[in-house]
Amino acid sequence: MFTKNCWYVACTPDEFAEKPLGRQICGERIAFFRNTDGKVGAVQDFCPHRGAPLSLGYVEDGGLVCGYHGLKMGADGKTLSMPKQRVGGFPCVKSYPVEERYGFVWVWTGDASLANTDDIPVLHWAEDPEWAYGGGLYHINCDYKLMIDNLMDLTHETYVHSTSIGQKEIDEAPVKTKLVDGEVQTVRHMENIKAPPFWQAALTANGLDANADVDRWQICRFNPPSHVMIEVGVAIAGNGGYEAEAQHKASSIVVDFITPETETSHWYFWGMARNFKPEDSALTDQIREGQGQIFSEDLEMLERQQRNILEFPERNLLKLDIDSGGVQARRIIDKLLEKEQQDSKITSVSA
Amino acid sequence: MFTKNCWYVACTPDEFAEKPLGRQICGERIAFFRNTDGKVGAVQDFCPHRGAPLSLGYVEDGGLVCGYHGLKMGADGKTLSMPKQRVGGFPCVKSYPVEERYGFVWVWTGDASLANTDDIPVLHWAEDPEWAYGGGLYHINCDYKLMIDNLMDLTHETYVHSTSIGQKEIDEAPVKTKLVDGEVQTVRHMENIKAPPFWQAALTANGLDANADVDRWQICRFNPPSHVMIEVGVAIAGNGGYEAEAQHKASSIVVDFITPETETSHWYFWGMARNFKPEDSALTDQIREGQGQIFSEDLEMLERQQRNILEFPERNLLKLDIDSGGVQARRIIDKLLEKEQQDSKITSVSA
Amino acid sequence: MFTKNCWYVACTPDEFAEKPLGRQICGERIAFFRNTDGKVGAVQDFCPHRGAPLSLGYVEDGGLVCGYHGLKMGADGKTLSMPKQRVGGFPCVKSYPVEERYGFVWVWTGDASLANTDDIPVLHWAEDPEWAYGGGLYHINCDYKLMIDNLMDLTHETYVHSTSIGQKEIDEAPVKTKLVDGEVQTVRHMENIKAPPFWQAALTANGLDANADVDRWQICRFNPPSHVMIEVGVAIAGNGGYEAEAQHKASSIVVDFITPETETSHWYFWGMARNFKPEDSALTDQIREGQGQIFSEDLEMLERQQRNILEFPERNLLKLDIDSGGVQARRIIDKLLEKEQQDSKITSVSA
Repeated sequence: MFTKNCWYVACTPDEFAEKPLGRQICGERIAFFRNTDGKVGAVQDFCPHRGAPLSLGYVEDGGLVCGYHGLKMGADGKTLSMPKQRVGGFPCVKSYPVEERYGFVWVWTGDASLANTDDIPVLHWAEDPEWAYGGGLYHINCDYKLMIDNLMDLTHETYVHSTSIGQKEIDEAPVKTKLVDGEVQTVRHMENIKAPPFWQAALTANGLDANADVDRWQICRFNPPSHVMIEVGVAIAGNGGYEAEAQHKASSIVVDFITPETETSHWYFWGMARNFKPEDSALTDQIREGQGQIFSEDLEMLERQQRNILEFPERNLLKLDIDSGGVQARRIIDKLLEKEQQDSKITSVSA
Repeated sequence: MFTKNCWYVACTPDEFAEKPLGRQICGERIAFFRNTDGKVGAVQDFCPHRGAPLSLGYVEDGGLVCGYHGLKMGADGKTLSMPKQRVGGFPCVKSYPVEERYGFVWVWTGDASLANTDDIPVLHWAEDPEWAYGGGLYHINCDYKLMIDNLMDLTHETYVHSTSIGQKEIDEAPVKTKLVDGEVQTVRHMENIKAPPFWQAALTANGLDANADVDRWQICRFNPPSHVMIEVGVAIAGNGGYEAEAQHKASSIVVDFITPETETSHWYFWGMARNFKPEDSALTDQIREGQGQIFSEDLEMLERQQRNILEFPERNLLKLDIDSGGVQARRIIDKLLEKEQQDSKITSVSA
Repeated sequence: MFTKNCWYVACTPDEFAEKPLGRQICGERIAFFRNTDGKVGAVQDFCPHRGAPLSLGYVEDGGLVCGYHGLKMGADGKTLSMPKQRVGGFPCVKSYPVEERYGFVWVWTGDASLANTDDIPVLHWAEDPEWAYGGGLYHINCDYKLMIDNLMDLTHETYVHSTSIGQKEIDEAPVKTKLVDGEVQTVRHMENIKAPPFWQAALTANGLDANADVDRWQICRFNPPSHVMIEVGVAIAGNGGYEAEAQHKASSIVVDFITPETETSHWYFWGMARNFKPEDSALTDQIREGQGQIFSEDLEMLERQQRNILEFPERNLLKLDIDSGGVQARRIIDKLLEKEQQDSKITSVSA
């Protein structure tokens, strides 16, 4: 069960630059393509003629041509043409509201009449020249909610990422979880500590003393359906920590879009937005590589956790204070799901 | 569900020249072997002693010896001997009517009492020194009927085989489907066109002008249970097309034996029979290689189509005029299946 | 269904020397680790916090630390600690009686209150300096009882191991099966034969004539739940065969611990114990390599047999005289299983 009346990040434009992309989102098999008018199309990945995946075809003259027998599908799910055929009576396929924004393609897999692109979250850093962004995509064989748990409880950094961003002080520092305007926030501050390797490198990149005592912060922000933005950084101790002025700190936003594929797999779009040296593309690459390496350390743990949970269906998981961010995020998802199901019943009755 | 009271191509003799061959045909696991009398044997691939596959064994003194404990199985499914054992009371395994003919091994997986080798189709080209044949085998993970559809509607050549035998004129030319003496025929003629690359090479091989305008034909012939022979060729335009005399054309028969393995997989025996330069074995190899390359282009499409159909079980496929050959072929298969089930009931009642 | 109130060989100490080992035994997923007190621990491979496999963690200060968020599990299945958490109320995980003995780790997956290390079989050769042992481990995708069958009927050597230990005389020699004090014995003696390659090498290693006529013996001993020890050897003919004095023979004990993983897979600990040249570790290596090679020949046969049995569920297997050892072993296992289930019911009623 997925919340469907919402925008998920489906892919990035480079993924269908050469040829259409077939991708499953919330259990729906979708063909993404850039149409001849430049707009992105998203239709069920099923040719109404003989069932071939439309994503194996190519774009031509305003539509997606099936690579088996040449049926041309429009972005609205209606067949545009087929050689020697009258296509007026052909059954439609589902088309999906889709929007290209901030360097991502956003898709709505639920009731299309409710789709409003104003509901796509505002990503200020994506359009601000003072900021730079770099990121990547992992396919992970686990429930997307396990990834939300992972990101809303960073104590795991001490264990999973012990050689880069983890440090003992993380799980020794108290964590606060609160709900602010529908956003779940998990906040942790650590004072007068040594920076771990990743942040030492960032301090050096910013011309600061990598060996100085620092104040470190992690502010995880969950917004439904499954976006987690994490403000992270360190400031030379005694300058106000999170509130310190730019010249005393190194900071950035960890960007996580977590898109369900099936009940036990998801697409994980990860990245980092920073507001220092935005023009330095070599630095962007370097950070992307480092982050990709660190985040890949979560993969095995998450996939093994998923398999283990399936192996022990009778066991419940604990909900400790450190898990509170994930617990509250799941509660929001459950409420949205419940509302969606009720709305769907009402629609059925009134229709 | 498969039509079983019929002859399928099971394998070619080279496949069990070194050691027995285990192969599943119509859901039946069968061990094929050449017995010491030179005849081909086909028995259930199950040793009645401890269940090992007999195909892991070897042939010796009139039977197939199990490679685990030495039980010797006869081609009739009765145990011939076993060291230090009296085998008279051993349970039998199923044996299958089998016939080696035309360079293929034909098997009957249904009611053995109905098997008549006279029902094996006559392949005139296989025994005529004026003809040469070359071919190969692909294992494909899709319902064998999807392959019949594929071969009875060659409009897909324009899309799937665009660089070799496909050309735009194919799906622009009208197609006729008819039923002649229980054979489904799909016929397409194209006039005054340029030959596509494959046929240009064939014209050259025949000493004809590769760049001349040609008339092209495709005559697909389906015969149950699942054989599709396709007469294909080009003639220099103005010589009568299909009816042109030999010196004006290049032509051949595409040979397709499509043998079910499971409901969603099959063995595809493909080849080409030609009546020019039959003694030129280098040409045979060259054609086999080219055809193998072209036919491999269908594999991904067919397997992805199969998976997609399983993913969208609620959707029906269209039955356009171009699909008529496949539709009529399936109708014949369904009737045979129905008859087989009725006969089976009658036998049960009278027995 | 497995007999669980018994000791199985689970692993060897080298398998968790570097880091914990996750292994499934009798359907139970278990984390094995060497605790800081030097003792082996065995607990359910499931962290009660968020379900990660504990075997992905590390040992520290008296417990197994989960590699995800740092929960520390004790060998008794009770959480010892977790950073910033009070763990008194944490749910336990199952812990398993475990004993390191004879170079193996033995585990009890049934009712822990019945576990008594005195029931671990005595392996005299494992502690006697006159003996040497070498062995290995195979994971095999078949019911562990098929491996018992395999080892209790050595006629298969003639077919499966024809180039090493097999010879025609094996399946020509009569075999006797008997039950002695709860142990199933299958005995075969062959007189005045030539030694097969493996034994020729052993004769040479012992300074005997490899080409002399020999008497050969195989005494297979099954003890529940699934241990098979096989006395094997050859003696220069005319010296009393099995009873011959040491200087006339080459002999050893084939050691087989067969531990169920699932209903259709098992862990096979194989090895050879010998009482000649025990100090010659090069010879130990050489024998291990040879035995490993020979025993690997059984793998394909057993896995294919398993798949075939699953494919032909309606067929029964034969129970010939040569199968009697396996049949009687299965009968003992079935009785133990029945008793275990009755005991379990009685416990349930009285509880």
